Amino acid sequence: MGVGLIGGSVGLAARESGWTVAGVDRPGQLEAALRAGAIDQPATLEEVRGSDVVVLAAPISTVKETLPDLAGSHALITDVASTKTAIVAAAERAGLRFVGGHPMAGSQLSGVANARADLFRGARYFLTPTDATDPEDYREVQSFVRELGAVPTAVEPEKHDLLMAALSHLPHMMAAALLEVASNISPEALSFAGPAFRDLTRVGASNPELWSDILSENAQAVGEVLGEFVRTMEDLGGEVEDRERITARFVEARRAYDSLGGILVEKSGTNVDLAIPVRNRPGVFAEVTTLMGSNSINILDLYVRHSNTERAALVLTLDSDAVKLARELLSTAGFASEVVG
Amino acid sequence: MGVGLIGGSVGLAARESGWTVAGVDRPGQLEAALRAGAIDQPATLEEVRGSDVVVLAAPISTVKETLPDLAGSHALITDVASTKTAIVAAAERAGLRFVGGHPMAGSQLSGVANARADLFRGARYFLTPTDATDPEDYREVQSFVRELGAVPTAVEPEKHDLLMAALSHLPHMMAAALLEVASNISPEALSFAGPAFRDLTRVGASNPELWSDILSENAQAVGEVLGEFVRTMEDLGGEVEDRERITARFVEARRAYDSLGGILVEKSGTNVDLAIPVRNRPGVFAEVTTLMGSNSINILDLYVRHSNTERAALVLTLDSDAVKLARELLSTAGFASEVVG
Repeated sequence: MGVGLIGGSVGLAARESGWTVAGVDRPGQLEAALRAGAIDQPATLEEVRGSDVVVLAAPISTVKETLPDLAGSHALITDVASTKTAIVAAAERAGLRFVGGHPMAGSQLSGVANARADLFRGARYFLTPTDATDPEDYREVQSFVRELGAVPTAVEPEKHDLLMAALSHLPHMMAAALLEVASNISPEALSFAGPAFRDLTRVGASNPELWSDILSENAQAVGEVLGEFVRTMEDLGGEVEDRERITARFVEARRAYDSLGGILVEKSGTNVDLAIPVRNRPGVFAEVTTLMGSNSINILDLYVRHSNTERAALVLTLDSDAVKLARELLSTAGFASEVVG
Repeated sequence: MGVGLIGGSVGLAARESGWTVAGVDRPGQLEAALRAGAIDQPATLEEVRGSDVVVLAAPISTVKETLPDLAGSHALITDVASTKTAIVAAAERAGLRFVGGHPMAGSQLSGVANARADLFRGARYFLTPTDATDPEDYREVQSFVRELGAVPTAVEPEKHDLLMAALSHLPHMMAAALLEVASNISPEALSFAGPAFRDLTRVGASNPELWSDILSENAQAVGEVLGEFVRTMEDLGGEVEDRERITARFVEARRAYDSLGGILVEKSGTNVDLAIPVRNRPGVFAEVTTLMGSNSINILDLYVRHSNTERAALVLTLDSDAVKLARELLSTAGFASEVVG
């Protein structure tokens, strides 16, 4: 139910694994889903009550409204919503065979036309069983998620919501607050901002309606981590002139930053950031990236740091095994490079 | 005085403009500066008292200690330190001909070996005159800064320090605090973080000693904006379930984000972000960037958004005038693309 980017991708991946998929959505959506090959047939919610698995991929509020309507169904039900505590509680109240889910996959693009059978491949997929979950039901959903190509990770619903609050929801609020504080200093303040400020505030420019929904749905966990965050900021504020204490804080922050994972569940080794100073002109990025590509060096991540209108540094994240070769190739091609971080 | 990346780049640029440059630093540094062509001759602080212009490019604490030693000098003195109120006050107490400065230019690399004559070209360069500044002295420093290729922008010392606190110092503290809050939820929490979290916390992994110095030097302004920020976060926390209010906050945040400038002082027009879904394999970034470069389309900025192990979106920032051609070229080459933001 709900055949957009996520629901459509579930359909494509499940069909590739041999499932027959019925889609529930508005008629126009279902036509698009059929065209995209994401479903075998359109259906109503009533018609899918007897399915083996029902995946609810609609907006959170719709999922919560739909759960009571599924009472009495023998289907194993899961969802893909980004907060879990309230939905899991509602499903248990309705007496459903239910395991909450939340895939860590998405796209800059939206809608079933951009759905992909490989959207979940290698992506982390949170599942939120509780004490009330039948272990056999959990194993079944786990196996379904693996068929989608994802990597299931079990976590309690409340812990899941705290994690999302800290890793995603709080950062969005921080970005919005920082933009407000900076623009209040003087009208032209924001025009002086540099690239690090842009990185920090990018998520503040997210879809306002979507984010007011997400924050509201996860209000309790958001309130909890926001309280922790404000206390930590106040502690830091009290220590600003205590160089030793601040140094220790930043040493700890660096250690934490270095343990960040998340983009790829299976990493082949340690990643290394390599900074390459370049001149801003058409073609310069291509020279560097071609040099890597034509020597089978995979660029795991890249970003640009501008120092002025004419010069920038291209920062490549590479597998540590590839760094030596990369630097030799760059040097031969006349590029300086330095390992950063 | 102080011939590292910044001081060395001042030397290179000033020599290109016809100045004779004497360097004051440790002997090893001065040898490196001579080799790099950043200075004409080594000197002592005593010997440069009679120069036309003295540029103090040493660490903040050294600059503050040095100012009283320059009392009685007729040279026009400026500095490049990242906080200004205390230094400007110390210079005025010493009765110097002084105009504070702070160039918004840097590099991932450090040291005089990485100094460049064009480091400041097109970069914003804050100058902080006060009521006590002789207008003729200000014009002279302004003209010197233009000779370095930079774009001078006058701002009061206190306002400068508030701007730096909001645009740079507070973000570093936010990143450190966020890393702490997230890692306190559970030991594995950080391994679940996605790319937006990485962008937000990157500055938290900055050099701990350097940052404890910077925060301590700007303690007053940092305390002020940190107070504002904490109040704004608490306001947001109180509004989490008020969808209308949160929506309005995010609409405002987006407007603020869209007005960010800073990387380049002179922009040729509006910039547009173009997302290109790609498969993660060696060479794919090169295909896209080569396509742009070989058609003289300049990539102003780029970053990667991973959706899973196998797929990502390459996001290019282009001049709006170039977007139509870029999308045609991409489409012909078999790449989808979508304007984002």
